[in-house]
Order: sequence, then C-alpha cells, then structure tokens
Amino acid sequence: MEKSPVPGDTLFMGVDGGGTKCRAVLVDGQKNVIGLGEGGACNAYQSFDKAIDSILVASEKALMEAGLKAGDRDKVVVGMGLAGVNIPDVYTRVWNWQHPFKARFLMTDLHAACVAAHGGSEGAVIVAGTGSCGFAQAGDRVLKLGAHGFPFGDKGSGAWIGLQALQAVLLNFDDLGKPTMLTELIATALKADGLDIIERMHNARTGDYASLAPAVFTAAEAGDPVAIAILREGADYLSDLADRLWSINPPRMSMLGGISHKMKDWMRNDIIERMSPALQQPEHGALFYAMQEYAQSIA
Amino acid sequence: MEKSPVPGDTLFMGVDGGGTKCRAVLVDGQKNVIGLGEGGACNAYQSFDKAIDSILVASEKALMEAGLKAGDRDKVVVGMGLAGVNIPDVYTRVWNWQHPFKARFLMTDLHAACVAAHGGSEGAVIVAGTGSCGFAQAGDRVLKLGAHGFPFGDKGSGAWIGLQALQAVLLNFDDLGKPTMLTELIATALKADGLDIIERMHNARTGDYASLAPAVFTAAEAGDPVAIAILREGADYLSDLADRLWSINPPRMSMLGGISHKMKDWMRNDIIERMSPALQQPEHGALFYAMQEYAQSIA
Repeated sequence: MEKSPVPGDTLFMGVDGGGTKCRAVLVDGQKNVIGLGEGGACNAYQSFDKAIDSILVASEKALMEAGLKAGDRDKVVVGMGLAGVNIPDVYTRVWNWQHPFKARFLMTDLHAACVAAHGGSEGAVIVAGTGSCGFAQAGDRVLKLGAHGFPFGDKGSGAWIGLQALQAVLLNFDDLGKPTMLTELIATALKADGLDIIERMHNARTGDYASLAPAVFTAAEAGDPVAIAILREGADYLSDLADRLWSINPPRMSMLGGISHKMKDWMRNDIIERMSPALQQPEHGALFYAMQEYAQSIA
Repeated sequence: MEKSPVPGDTLFMGVDGGGTKCRAVLVDGQKNVIGLGEGGACNAYQSFDKAIDSILVASEKALMEAGLKAGDRDKVVVGMGLAGVNIPDVYTRVWNWQHPFKARFLMTDLHAACVAAHGGSEGAVIVAGTGSCGFAQAGDRVLKLGAHGFPFGDKGSGAWIGLQALQAVLLNFDDLGKPTMLTELIATALKADGLDIIERMHNARTGDYASLAPAVFTAAEAGDPVAIAILREGADYLSDLADRLWSINPPRMSMLGGISHKMKDWMRNDIIERMSPALQQPEHGALFYAMQEYAQSIA
C-alpha cells in the first residue's frame, strides 16, 4: 500500500455552496466526520459577498461542532464546490479571495455533486432543480453543459418551467393562447387574481419562478395539454443533455435536484433506465476532491 | 359652436412616461405649444419613485421653457400616460400620489399613444419596442392586450427577441441547439467570448435584452434559420394581436415602437396592409385626454 504524504492530523472540509444554502462537512485524518455546518445562499455569481459569508458561517459551525473554533480554519484543507464559478470571471474572483484556510481547492458545485454521486469515482450527473445542468468526467475528458443561469439558460429546470407557465397563463389571459388549468393553479399559488400575478412576480428571483413548477406538474398529471407541452419540452432537453453526456462514456450517471424525480416521468425511457442512484451528498464530493488534490500538491 | 366651460387661460400638459424616458408638452388655452420637457425613466411598475421624479423633472423643464417655474404646476391641468399603470396596484399608488398640479388625469402610456396615433379619435395601436402590447378603443369597447412585462410577457418585443437569441446561442454553445450565426453576432454585440456572455448579462435589464434584437434582424436578413424562426414566432404573435384588436372594430390601427418597422417585414401581409400611420406623439394623446376629461369634469 502506498504511503500517503498527508500528515495524519490534517483536517479536511468539504463545502457545497448552492443558490439556497451552503453545507460544510469536517473530517479528521481518519476520515471520521467530526462536524457539520450550514450557511445561507452561496451562489458566487448571484452575490460574491453573500457566498463568502455563507462559507465562513458554515465552516465555523462545523468547526464548533467538532469542539474547535473559527480561528482553527488555518488547520483545515477545504474543498469548495460552488455555484457560479463555472463563469470565468466569477471563478477568478473567488480564487483571489484571501481565504483563512490552510489550503483550499475550488470546483463547481456541479463537479462536486458528480464526484459525490459516484462515491469519489468518475461519472456524470444531470441536475434538475431550481436550475439545470449536466456534468461528465471520464478519463481526461470533461463535459460541462448548461448552468447558464436564468432566464436565458436552465431549460427543463423548475425556474424555466415556472416561466413557461406564466407565459402560457398571460397569453391565455388575452385569449391569444390555449386555455389551460394553469391559469387557476398559478393564481392560487400566487394568491392573486388576473393581472395581479404580474405584480406578485415583480422582481421575482429564480426561486420564485421555480416555486410555480409544482402547479405545472399537477396540471400535467391531470391531462392539461399546455402543462404537458411545457414538461415534454423541458424533459426532451434533459434527455438530449444525457445523450451528450453519455457521448464521452462516463461509467455511471445520476440525476439530482428537487424536480429530478418528477422530470424522470417525462423523459425518454432508455435514458431513465440507465440512471444510477447518487451515492453521497455534494459536500462529500468537494471533500474527496480536496483530499485528492492536497495529497498531490504535497507529494 | 358649443361654448367650452374651460377658462381660456388654463394651461394643459401632456406627459408620456415610458421605460426609458418621459416627455412633457405644455400648451396654452389656445392649444399653442409653449414648452417641452424631458425626464428620465418613467415606468411606475419598475420604480414608482423614479417615475414620479421623472414627471417632476420633465414638467419643470416644460414650464421653464415657457418662462414659468416649477411652482406654476398648480396652474396646470396635466394628463399623464404612464407605463406600468395597467397593473391595478401600480395605478392606485400613482393615483394616490399627492401631486402638485391643478388637476391630473391618469391613463396608460398605451392608451395615450393610441389617442395620439389617431389624432384624438378612436382606434387601435400595436407597440413593438423594448416591450410589446396592443390597445383598441371603439365606442364603449376597450381592449388591452399584453404589456405584461419581461421576461414572462412582451412576446414579439425587442427584449423577447433578445432573450430568445441568448437562449439559442447558449443551446448551440452546448451542441444542443441548431448552429446559428447569432453566436458570433451576439458575442460581438456584447464584446464577449463564449460563456462570458452570461457574465455580461448578469442583472441585465429589459433594455439590455432589447439591445440584442438588431443582431437577430441582421442574422435573419442573411438567411439564418434560427433567427428567422425567432422573428416569425414573434411576428405571428403580433399578427394575432392585431386580429384580436380588429375584433372590436376600431376605425384605424397603427404600429408604434422601435422595432415595429422591422417586425412588419415578418408579419402577415393582410395585417400590414390595414395599418395606418400614427398621426402624433404619445404625449399629445395624454394632452387630448386631459383637455377632454377636464372639460367634462367642470361642465
């Protein structure tokens, strides 16, 4: 067995930073989990300052649970999987942050989720939650798809579905679209009548759009043609995304995210049958990555 | 000839408030234009405070050009045609504003544009600019369509076209959409390469999306199938909008807005042939309305 160059008392942390919250897991040199922490929104594209703050909060909580304190961050090698760092300028800004850790490694939240889903090994993931994206790693080939942001990207995501539903309801309101039960379901979801839904969605954020997705699933399950057309278009995109990811031959593929289970009902069967369950949570992917990269960096 | 109940020394002002700017026209009791003024953005849905400020700036400038001062607003009967007041809550908020005028009448910018386009008479208008909407008035029938706001409404508008173009470019970037010359044209328009376009569009406003529309017209004119499909879908919506407006038999219809001329090339011929030129600018519609309503209110 190869001897690891990493001292046995090195602490490692994995951080998963997403649009809604940030999770940290702290392990000792024997890979025992000794602390967990959670912070707020952590999408470095949406807000750099908030993301940094959430990382600091989550890491402090994890340290405190282990009987340590915030100042002990300088003993911790951290892997951070963050939403937003797929954008070059955002990556650079986070990379240049004067962080308080012993060492830090940076990856996208998507990459971390993929590593975690396959227990530290290679594979592919499709995320269908508030946003949507795909990631695959096989040998030296890496494929990153989507994660472009709302409203121009993230097709097949909860936010995209919510936007399509609102568009359909507003067209129907003017008698310029097909009648749909979404009109009533969206009005109920927003506690609004008629054009008041516009006022409710003033300055709406991605998550507000995604919160309309359940109404679309309800309508589609009841046979509403407008809702079915929306879900089919979104699901076709996710199926196409899977095809592209399989093209580099990843050994495994998983589907993650809040609406992934629902979207599977509308995707192609051949795609769904090849999906495998995700083995671990994304913060463990960031942890795997930090341990691997740190060992290489001091080897 | 009927004697007007309005004293001959009454000053009237028409204000047209849109998403980009606010124009005011001041006339004396003999309908001679004695002052013009311009203010900033004036969409009461996007920002109430900014809209009010822009009205105050534009009206003061118009008064000063006439040799009067801001304090003379209390001698002025104003008609305000404002973007955003089609939304009931926004209308109420503007209506409740403690304004400094002698009297004020409130209408949507669309209604004002329609009255102006037909020289104070009834008719219909379709607006295709940064946003899109339709309005028709014939006898006691009024039809208001669209003006729902971006990104959920405003189909066929510059902002909608820009959003479709970005979506197409990002799908193409992942090899999940059709190849399109929009990829290069949008990159050039945004002075960005590849995924940097996402960073450029971070927190983009409606006008930023609309600024991408010229690239789509260029691509469509060069035969790009993706650009052509976008414009056809938008133009079909505008043609359908016209059909709905004709259904209440307005005597005339005009098309207004920054991209209306370009969109006519993609709309149905039978619709385009029935369009008439707009006779006056929207602020004159607000002026007509104020003069008419004020005469009735004191009759």
